[in-house]
Amino acid sequence: MPGVASGVGAVPVDGSGGPDPARVFDWVDRRAELRARAGLTRVTRPRSASSPLLDLAGNDYLGLTRHPEVVAAATSATREWGAGATGSRLVTGTTELHEELEAELAAFTGAEAALVFASGYAANLAALTALTGPGTVVVADAYNHASLIDGCRLSRARTVVFPHRDVAAVERELAAAGSARALVVTDSVFSVDGDAAPLAELAAVCRAHGAALLVDDAHGLGVLGGGGVGALAAAGLAGAPDVVATVTLSKSLGAQGGAVLGPRRVVRHLVETARTFIFDTGLAPACVGGALGALRLLRAEPERAARVRAVARRLADALGGAGLAVSVPEAAVVSVRAPSPEAAVAWAAACREAGVAVGCFRPPSVPDGMSRLRLTARADLTPEQVARVVEVVAATAPAPAAEGGGV
Amino acid sequence: MPGVASGVGAVPVDGSGGPDPARVFDWVDRRAELRARAGLTRVTRPRSASSPLLDLAGNDYLGLTRHPEVVAAATSATREWGAGATGSRLVTGTTELHEELEAELAAFTGAEAALVFASGYAANLAALTALTGPGTVVVADAYNHASLIDGCRLSRARTVVFPHRDVAAVERELAAAGSARALVVTDSVFSVDGDAAPLAELAAVCRAHGAALLVDDAHGLGVLGGGGVGALAAAGLAGAPDVVATVTLSKSLGAQGGAVLGPRRVVRHLVETARTFIFDTGLAPACVGGALGALRLLRAEPERAARVRAVARRLADALGGAGLAVSVPEAAVVSVRAPSPEAAVAWAAACREAGVAVGCFRPPSVPDGMSRLRLTARADLTPEQVARVVEVVAATAPAPAAEGGGV
Repeated sequence: MPGVASGVGAVPVDGSGGPDPARVFDWVDRRAELRARAGLTRVTRPRSASSPLLDLAGNDYLGLTRHPEVVAAATSATREWGAGATGSRLVTGTTELHEELEAELAAFTGAEAALVFASGYAANLAALTALTGPGTVVVADAYNHASLIDGCRLSRARTVVFPHRDVAAVERELAAAGSARALVVTDSVFSVDGDAAPLAELAAVCRAHGAALLVDDAHGLGVLGGGGVGALAAAGLAGAPDVVATVTLSKSLGAQGGAVLGPRRVVRHLVETARTFIFDTGLAPACVGGALGALRLLRAEPERAARVRAVARRLADALGGAGLAVSVPEAAVVSVRAPSPEAAVAWAAACREAGVAVGCFRPPSVPDGMSRLRLTARADLTPEQVARVVEVVAATAPAPAAEGGGV
Repeated sequence: MPGVASGVGAVPVDGSGGPDPARVFDWVDRRAELRARAGLTRVTRPRSASSPLLDLAGNDYLGLTRHPEVVAAATSATREWGAGATGSRLVTGTTELHEELEAELAAFTGAEAALVFASGYAANLAALTALTGPGTVVVADAYNHASLIDGCRLSRARTVVFPHRDVAAVERELAAAGSARALVVTDSVFSVDGDAAPLAELAAVCRAHGAALLVDDAHGLGVLGGGGVGALAAAGLAGAPDVVATVTLSKSLGAQGGAVLGPRRVVRHLVETARTFIFDTGLAPACVGGALGALRLLRAEPERAARVRAVARRLADALGGAGLAVSVPEAAVVSVRAPSPEAAVAWAAACREAGVAVGCFRPPSVPDGMSRLRLTARADLTPEQVARVVEVVAATAPAPAAEGGGV
């Protein structure tokens, strides 16, 4: 192969006749060109602290991340404990504040125990890898979040993917699993369209087959159930001995981090075996304190949960009324279909131009390959702001979507 | 099988004849019993904000996590930006502060570009999965950190493990890889014993074969190289077009988070393809601000890096002089072998009793199966404190170790 050193990878040679180090990563440029041609280029867009945009793109569902009490809780934790946890949770990374947050998270959601991680991603990897393994079966919803999918990949369990929300398919897979230990895994609220898993039905099927159920309640905590206690309590599953939940501290609770909630023995098992618990630095005090402050605020103001759900419904109704292809929001997320990735990008840019920030989801971040705008309701949006959002999103819609097709 | 519902997993039946939901997780208790019998029980031990213990267990190598300037930077970031980043980096989770930290990290280490993640664990998963894949070969040191190992597992690349620090074995594997794209992966400083990888030799072998090199500099940043610029710059590899580094913000920089440092095109590739970047909430402003504050402080006080290395050498010399089996510290970590897991636990407890916190590493956190105490030097330890540590560790050593065997 001329210009490519033989037997040493596909790297072109340099003047000395050896592979050219400057060409080792040429392949990433070729991949970038392919993405650009498919309209799938992504760039970070830094925001300023005083952005004038109306934010319907973030996941600060309850409007707490900049709440004075949450900010005060985060800064006071930093002053008391320092900027970092200094080590992994089993060495120096567990402060009394971590245990306080764990106790209050468990009490709030009705779980026996809770364990805090540096991210929701890490919590999902931990739950999946520690609760499964070779010889076990994971039965997973096709639309699960990437962190659950990565957890399945890491688990070395046999993973069976079932069609989105299909309880009968779960039942068939559990029957087929026979005497193998089985874990059914689902998001409570799916992040792209905001639709909900049939948790009570899934739990019943799991029970009939002696399987455990793992639910990622990232989008349910603080939003679903009375006062935002989450999807499990709303489905009558709080404190169940065969159900484990994961949550994030970075959405409703406005901070960063994740947690696993479940039976005390499961939490102990994670402490002793979960690699993302044992080998990761503990969550920073600011995040622990911030999440704790937000949780206490939510307990004091439980109406925030109902408010964010009402805002989501109002958004969906009005956008649907404007002829757009809108999802039915079970929690805070509302999505609107776009005719193509390029149209979605242009639409989101036009909204931004008009002062409204919305999410723009394209492959590979969408399980069905359909691009869309993703709007997130916030408990602190006023009726005027909601009306303005609807006006902007409808006025900037690409032609096919405005005509009612949406796809 | 009496008492076990047939065909529905190994879960015992309840009064109704179906599998008992309260027994679904019985198996985790059986695992706990096995660990207890092997002396491998682990529990979190919450620390108070005003612990009187002399800390040689955490990874706050430069003594910055509670430094007033670092605390001020973290709290001011929280006040300006809120307690959380509110979304993933490609949606709302990139603030101007994130980009500021990325620019300064790149400049400090001599890399072309940097990308910040919510944890060092996430940075390693990102680098490994985005830079490899089916059809590629990963050549990995046997003692690599758990997050690198998990990255290899997630990558779906063929992974070949080479004996610890064995450059000749790497050369053989790269030759055997033929025209497949190859990535050699190593820690710069290994977390358990504090020994260093032969980076310059590994880079030379990679170059001869057109392979890329990925180095986890978690324990090198802030400690190795002039002013703590890290292991890559120390090895003459800063800015190399075929080398990628990962670092953590939770050790020398006293905060939380991780980063990938490397060629600009590699960083762009991660932005567009790395799942733990795309699908994870951005790092909290407090952590971004805290790490930035620490980095600026280190630039202003570059002598901190040499100081922590000197403290580590002093500790190792004195402990070795006391007859203990001590590792040769290349950075801040010093380890002392213990005769058994139980002896290590008892030794660490005795040190704690005497006012000194040390790490206690047992299987499965040690790659060679050998339990040990792990001591971490800090730049802010006084000679008197170092002497006290040596006195306590030597006085509490278990008999076989004190007699010089150590294993």
